[in-house]
Amino acid sequence: MIILGIDPGTAITGYGLIETVGSHCRLLDYGCIRTTANIPAPQRLEKLYSGMRQLLTEGKPEQVAIEKLFFNRNATTAIPVGQARGVLLLACAQMGLTVAEYTPLQVKQNIVGYGRAEKHQIQFMVARLLHMKTPPKSDDAADALAIALTHAQYLLTRAIRGEDTNY
Amino acid sequence: MIILGIDPGTAITGYGLIETVGSHCRLLDYGCIRTTANIPAPQRLEKLYSGMRQLLTEGKPEQVAIEKLFFNRNATTAIPVGQARGVLLLACAQMGLTVAEYTPLQVKQNIVGYGRAEKHQIQFMVARLLHMKTPPKSDDAADALAIALTHAQYLLTRAIRGEDTNY
Repeated sequence: MIILGIDPGTAITGYGLIETVGSHCRLLDYGCIRTTANIPAPQRLEKLYSGMRQLLTEGKPEQVAIEKLFFNRNATTAIPVGQARGVLLLACAQMGLTVAEYTPLQVKQNIVGYGRAEKHQIQFMVARLLHMKTPPKSDDAADALAIALTHAQYLLTRAIRGEDTNY
Repeated sequence: MIILGIDPGTAITGYGLIETVGSHCRLLDYGCIRTTANIPAPQRLEKLYSGMRQLLTEGKPEQVAIEKLFFNRNATTAIPVGQARGVLLLACAQMGLTVAEYTPLQVKQNIVGYGRAEKHQIQFMVARLLHMKTPPKSDDAADALAIALTHAQYLLTRAIRGEDTNY
């Protein structure tokens, strides 16, 4: 099962592609889609959408997991992040993919075992779980890989219980 | 000049299409793109995106104006509205259209002359300015027409000043 994890953002969207092999996971690819602030929002969204389309076409994920966002405090950034999330979800829907959602708390608890884990702890654990020589430099790519690993864990738990993994 | 006004939302996106004729505006079309809550967000966004693409292809607007949103209080709805706005802006960018933005305050001040105008006052003024026999029933469609009219007014002011209207 190939899983794509996404950490959405207008300026930087992190992505991580992994493959489940039995109860383990193998790293396939990771990185960021970046857009520059000097172009209008619609064109930035177009660039992000095209990048995601290319990623889905080339990476051929069977399942997608994305960060679920809450904005209780900093609501001013919620609209731009929501816009980025919108075009990413659209790209997935157009490829017939369902999208699982996990909160940052769920991801941190699953990967580090602690809901308030620091960025470097996530990077360390992601590198360890995926047998990487060095942790991903980008926080966003590390978060995306952590989201993909969280979904892989969820699917494994379902499989062990004999439940359907193509929900 | 054909102008499309958009009032974005996941469940209901209002739209209003008008044509500037000298210093007046003529109503071309108005309505809502609706999506039902019983389908997942990615599929709802896909439906909204397809509806907007169709509207842009058939209505052939030369300029687009959309509501600019602020969420100081109700931040929980900011993400879904942002997602809807994202796919709408994407559809515009893919057609090579630039998108103007107006806050609800700007629209109300321009149409009713009062920044805290009620919904029914906007509906009344939109109907009056566009020579409609009855006001639009839908708040969202009325708001979308009000946004289009605000942009038409902005362009007229620029034209009077001898400024470029294809900004």
